[in-house]
Amino acid sequence: MTTEVKPGPRERLLEAAATLTYREGAGVGIQALCKTAGVSKRSMYQLFDSKDELLAASLEQGAGAYAAWLLPADDDGRSHRARILHVFERVESQATVPENRGCRYLAVQIELKDQSHPASRVARQVKDDLKEFFRAEADRGGARDPDLLARQLLLVFDGASARAGIKVDDLAGLVAPTVNTLLDAAGM
Amino acid sequence: MTTEVKPGPRERLLEAAATLTYREGAGVGIQALCKTAGVSKRSMYQLFDSKDELLAASLEQGAGAYAAWLLPADDDGRSHRARILHVFERVESQATVPENRGCRYLAVQIELKDQSHPASRVARQVKDDLKEFFRAEADRGGARDPDLLARQLLLVFDGASARAGIKVDDLAGLVAPTVNTLLDAAGM
Repeated sequence: MTTEVKPGPRERLLEAAATLTYREGAGVGIQALCKTAGVSKRSMYQLFDSKDELLAASLEQGAGAYAAWLLPADDDGRSHRARILHVFERVESQATVPENRGCRYLAVQIELKDQSHPASRVARQVKDDLKEFFRAEADRGGARDPDLLARQLLLVFDGASARAGIKVDDLAGLVAPTVNTLLDAAGM
Repeated sequence: MTTEVKPGPRERLLEAAATLTYREGAGVGIQALCKTAGVSKRSMYQLFDSKDELLAASLEQGAGAYAAWLLPADDDGRSHRARILHVFERVESQATVPENRGCRYLAVQIELKDQSHPASRVARQVKDDLKEFFRAEADRGGARDPDLLARQLLLVFDGASARAGIKVDDLAGLVAPTVNTLLDAAGM
């Protein structure tokens, strides 16, 4: 006989928040969240101060797995250029997945329209960490202006994932040439 | 005595939809829209089949003024390169305006998460028109691959306006160098 450990109400709420906000937006109702998680409203408010805090916690919980998926391993031995391109290969690999709605950390900030919202703060930190990855790789790779290159790469990252997420561009033959052009111009 | 022509209920609803959806998102309620417009729900439904149609009509109504503001005049005599850069100067000029929330035609598609929504369709058309402007200028300006360049410029446009709209980048010293690098690489 095997013993399955079922996720508790907290885990189920975090999962429901991650799934529903990505699919339907940050405006998803508490009722829908509780129903999907199979948790009463009362229990939700015992676990989280507010829906805002639940949203923020769900983004924070997913951030580690997201970074592990998106970024190359620390010691993969590849060039800094290849390590930067790896991130964009990931973005491109998701472009045509039907469920892909682009970068959730961009979407939530656009939807909430409030930089002081707890979920906006978490989302911003995740993207700041990505910018710091780009900046560090650019710096080590000898880019002329690592700060500028990091800003450019974030701009391409957000533009590409947003446009793929709204299904207006499949990114094929677009992202790699664009990033390569910017890396070349930066002297990397 | 001057005679002021007050906007009618239709105009007030379109204005309220444009203002509130930009400021608060496409999920803004019918009640808030009607209240801001000073129009009863009953009257709203006499004028528009649904909130979705009101949203779409408000985006469509604003599209002409938006294009006139964003794009250079047809016969301004400047180079194709300068005409493309003009668009990005516009984007940059709005970056630090506190009320700026980036491109409304991108935001509404991200928020609605439904490409068949009437407002998504209008928004997509507006951006397709912008892409066609870029493609035509790229073509006339002798770009090697006008289609690729147009896609790259849209990607930078959406990335830049989104990042400015969520207040994570003021775009200063970022957009012009990025666009110039892409134009150079395209042989324009």
